[in-house]
Amino acid sequence: MSTPLHFQLEKTLPGADGLPRARAGRLTLKGAKDQNHEILTPMFMPVGTVGSVKGVTPEELRLMGAQIILGNTYHLYLRPGHQLVEKLGELHQFMNWDGPILTDSGGFQVFSLSGLNKIDDEGVTFQSHIDGSSHRFTPELSMEIQRALGSDIVMAFDECPPYPATEEQVRAAMRRTVRWAERGLNTPLKSHQARFGIVQGGLYEHLRNESAKDITALPFDGYAIGGLSIGETPDLMQQMCAHTAPLLPQDKPRYLMGVGRPEDLVECVRAGIDLFDCVMPTRNARNGQLFTSQGKINIKNRRYAEDAGPLDPNCRCETCRKYSRAYLRHLFVCGELLSARLNTIHNLSYYLSLMQEMRSAILENRFDDWAKSFYTKRAGEPKND
Amino acid sequence: MSTPLHFQLEKTLPGADGLPRARAGRLTLKGAKDQNHEILTPMFMPVGTVGSVKGVTPEELRLMGAQIILGNTYHLYLRPGHQLVEKLGELHQFMNWDGPILTDSGGFQVFSLSGLNKIDDEGVTFQSHIDGSSHRFTPELSMEIQRALGSDIVMAFDECPPYPATEEQVRAAMRRTVRWAERGLNTPLKSHQARFGIVQGGLYEHLRNESAKDITALPFDGYAIGGLSIGETPDLMQQMCAHTAPLLPQDKPRYLMGVGRPEDLVECVRAGIDLFDCVMPTRNARNGQLFTSQGKINIKNRRYAEDAGPLDPNCRCETCRKYSRAYLRHLFVCGELLSARLNTIHNLSYYLSLMQEMRSAILENRFDDWAKSFYTKRAGEPKND
Repeated sequence: MSTPLHFQLEKTLPGADGLPRARAGRLTLKGAKDQNHEILTPMFMPVGTVGSVKGVTPEELRLMGAQIILGNTYHLYLRPGHQLVEKLGELHQFMNWDGPILTDSGGFQVFSLSGLNKIDDEGVTFQSHIDGSSHRFTPELSMEIQRALGSDIVMAFDECPPYPATEEQVRAAMRRTVRWAERGLNTPLKSHQARFGIVQGGLYEHLRNESAKDITALPFDGYAIGGLSIGETPDLMQQMCAHTAPLLPQDKPRYLMGVGRPEDLVECVRAGIDLFDCVMPTRNARNGQLFTSQGKINIKNRRYAEDAGPLDPNCRCETCRKYSRAYLRHLFVCGELLSARLNTIHNLSYYLSLMQEMRSAILENRFDDWAKSFYTKRAGEPKND
Repeated sequence: MSTPLHFQLEKTLPGADGLPRARAGRLTLKGAKDQNHEILTPMFMPVGTVGSVKGVTPEELRLMGAQIILGNTYHLYLRPGHQLVEKLGELHQFMNWDGPILTDSGGFQVFSLSGLNKIDDEGVTFQSHIDGSSHRFTPELSMEIQRALGSDIVMAFDECPPYPATEEQVRAAMRRTVRWAERGLNTPLKSHQARFGIVQGGLYEHLRNESAKDITALPFDGYAIGGLSIGETPDLMQQMCAHTAPLLPQDKPRYLMGVGRPEDLVECVRAGIDLFDCVMPTRNARNGQLFTSQGKINIKNRRYAEDAGPLDPNCRCETCRKYSRAYLRHLFVCGELLSARLNTIHNLSYYLSLMQEMRSAILENRFDDWAKSFYTKRAGEPKND
């Protein structure tokens, strides 16, 4: 395999609107050592912000069915520094994960996490959220950092305007994102690294149209939808995703950034998305909010204090096989380290199984039935959890 | 096996004083399901305070070589409550650890952790360190709690005077401990539960003599040395341990409570101790202080920032096999959950390997040589770590 990325669509289902929508595919990444990593889509990418998926090991990620994880350029640039990571064998070796890694561009964190930031056409000057020190990202530097990290999929550096934003702000950010995408493409990467462009345009359909046209005209290996799930309602997010997905090439992978709740994954797979990432399963795990086939559970709830049953009777993860709700509640209430870990294993397993179920349903041409059953099972969700 | 505990001495080495000292043994515990758990001594017991050894799973404990763990009666009584634990299948099933468990009596925590406590001949009234609520422990209640928890070794309820304490205080506590031990023996346990008595007497040799005489006159399955490692110097602790160990029966297991640093384990095994417990390997792991064959390492030290080598080149634990010092430092500096976990795996592995090495050295009659080599290797310990 000489190209860094190969994407083979295995099945595409028509949506209610007659457009080609939900897809199952096979994404192959060359890998730094020609491993030919295979990712079966649709797929969810656990977030390994600063070089670890919080609380779990690479071996556990494999056992849960993770096929690709995400690393954050902003965080890794600040700590421990991309040059140090490169010196220590790039991100794969540094964190002992031999599967594929997608790195974001740093753009989203620069805008959302850092202190004062100042954007101009050349780049963004920002203050570290850790120590307030001043830094500057340009589209070129974002590529250089991701090159040093050695990730398998490199994201273009984009400007993600806040929500809400005026049409003028969104248009300006969207057009700058196109120019930055072009500059990024002119910055060399390692031969195994694939590149994804990012469509912006906020909640304005005509801006999404324009952005998709401009970005897909550039020779990326895949395309992402950015600028969603930043404060708008889930309905609006899903609508905008459904509007944008068909604007992206059929034969390239599509990645919806930063989404979302289980029902968001279902609706956006239905709309034609292949890849997702979100901190929700990992962050909520640490807060005791657990996703199950029957809906959400807040494990600190007193109702679970004497509950000897498994978290989710339909789940085969380590947590559900070995521990009771009562024990998980106890660990959470006591603030035990094991709580975050066992909860994370469950939530990620739930997300990854959900993707696997959707993939099978698509391949077997029964996605709508599957989705109905998904919602029916959740109807009994405890209301005050 | 009808008795709850059987102890077979495999080898005893004479000390420099000509007394029988360092021992290797085989401790068999009947187990609630007649499993006949075998513990090869000398052995270290990881501390699972509130129903989990902080940050690690039972499977990991097994992989590290743990053969028995400790649970804290005081903590489990407060949360989640011993009756609930019993209802959920006792402590073994609750925490999914099928190996043996020793529970302490709650005495030490009542005196050291809780707020105001008031001791009388009947028992101790104390305030919970969690919510200030008032509780009362008696020797009988301590047995009832440990019976409910279903541990394999039950400790007598003792009074542990603070350090420093006057001879009069220590004598009073020591004599009360004997009366409480007798009352505990009159409280029934489950048939698989063995009982250990505790020798007190502070740093007064004649009180240790008196306590050992009185406690070993009672029909316990094993004997512990309590009231050490509570503020006195390590030298004094080791001296008092060496004084007390030969006062305990040769044919019963000997347990030194709450000790200690690696060098303390070496010296107290040399003195004739079989069992140890201490929070040091787990607590220090969370603080980034790691034990290695070459001495202590403070992993946050900048000198490790670019160190691609393993934590301890002589260690075969998961952490040392898979991760670099640079990565471990990065995780610690970023406060990642994985830091505490990987550090804990290493520190416990180090402690458990140390015990295994000492056991082999005793069996092969080369303990003094082994101990010399232990100290020589550590001579190069970084001084400012």
